[in-house]
Amino acid sequence: MNVLIIHAHPEAKSFNTALMTLAQAHFIEAGHTVAVSDLYEMNWNPIASAADFAQRKSPDYLVYALEQRHNYEQQGIAPDIAAELEKLKAADLVIFNFPLYWFSVPAILKGWIDRVLISGVCYGGMRFYDQGGLKGKKALVTLTLGGREHMFGQNAIHGELVDGMLRPLLRGTLAYVGLEVLPPFIGYHVPYIKPEAREQILVDYKNYLTNLDELTPLRYPHMDEFDGKLYPK
Amino acid sequence: MNVLIIHAHPEAKSFNTALMTLAQAHFIEAGHTVAVSDLYEMNWNPIASAADFAQRKSPDYLVYALEQRHNYEQQGIAPDIAAELEKLKAADLVIFNFPLYWFSVPAILKGWIDRVLISGVCYGGMRFYDQGGLKGKKALVTLTLGGREHMFGQNAIHGELVDGMLRPLLRGTLAYVGLEVLPPFIGYHVPYIKPEAREQILVDYKNYLTNLDELTPLRYPHMDEFDGKLYPK
Repeated sequence: MNVLIIHAHPEAKSFNTALMTLAQAHFIEAGHTVAVSDLYEMNWNPIASAADFAQRKSPDYLVYALEQRHNYEQQGIAPDIAAELEKLKAADLVIFNFPLYWFSVPAILKGWIDRVLISGVCYGGMRFYDQGGLKGKKALVTLTLGGREHMFGQNAIHGELVDGMLRPLLRGTLAYVGLEVLPPFIGYHVPYIKPEAREQILVDYKNYLTNLDELTPLRYPHMDEFDGKLYPK
Repeated sequence: MNVLIIHAHPEAKSFNTALMTLAQAHFIEAGHTVAVSDLYEMNWNPIASAADFAQRKSPDYLVYALEQRHNYEQQGIAPDIAAELEKLKAADLVIFNFPLYWFSVPAILKGWIDRVLISGVCYGGMRFYDQGGLKGKKALVTLTLGGREHMFGQNAIHGELVDGMLRPLLRGTLAYVGLEVLPPFIGYHVPYIKPEAREQILVDYKNYLTNLDELTPLRYPHMDEFDGKLYPK
């Protein structure tokens, strides 16, 4: 199996980075191939712009998704994007490892999503959700946050986490491009807990990864539940 | 009234930019003061990092929120962040004008949120939601997207938009820092519609802005509904 870890934390000594390192070691030890895109270390450019395209279809007016399709065909996509896309296409499992910033991904990771998940390859036309361009691959979100578990849920102060705050990422992005989305691994209250509690999260994560094949992916829309204009059948 | 427009579109001739320009002209004409942060034009740096702080409290280990509080007190915050923070503090109404990328904000705007909404000023301790640091100000999200209106809703292919996909932004970010969040103005299917349909959206937006005072803000949690440990009372 090829594993790709997309990692986005500004502190190399962070606990979040320790989770990334653990996953990397775990999969190597199990005989898999692991690629890591450490976005801070790579000084990843998160800004989707005209500079991403060497071969403009429409030189005077930028429609980003349209230029993605055209430049992919013409091999005009910026080299940093093309390199990530190759890693992504080779991967069987993609892990997104990050601290939750504003109930979402850090901007540097949002910019990986904006620039790498290109139209025409990862989605396009009627190819999305279970028909998305990356179908057959799995995705795991591993995140740390400051909040406690009881702050999330239907009547909790922040509402639902997995089906609420994380919906644009899990459903609107990862499931949208056809990835099978595994239940996320979540480290709560990380900045405030004792070393022993952090150790326990590492133990739990190791077990989680060991038993990954037994997890049931989250259930998202299937294209055959909708008609050609995307109204529910 | 002071209006601040945060704008994030890579194409200066885009319809999305026309919405921004319309709002700017509308409020100036009505006698208000308008500041615009055009993030692409400013070449805004979206990456939260150690480089944002001149006076590190903990030089060897970066805890971003902790350095935000410390550096705000010590006037060590990066000048680009400090300038945006001043604009934000002066504003009575903040408009976020952007195209929806992956059911969320473009990375360049996520980086404005990550870096400018600093701990200790915009939120902190028990000051969030209706007690957030920016209480008394209003926020309006104005967005354009490719999807059609019928693709959103409880049984629709993408689920709810305002209370679903936009939750981390509207509730988890804008309401969290105390802003009164107005119902967003949404331009659907923009890349695919005729010029007349785009004209109609501009007319609708002008009316929306003219009647802004009559809009009821969205309802989000109030701190007095929760106890000191943030369990529901």
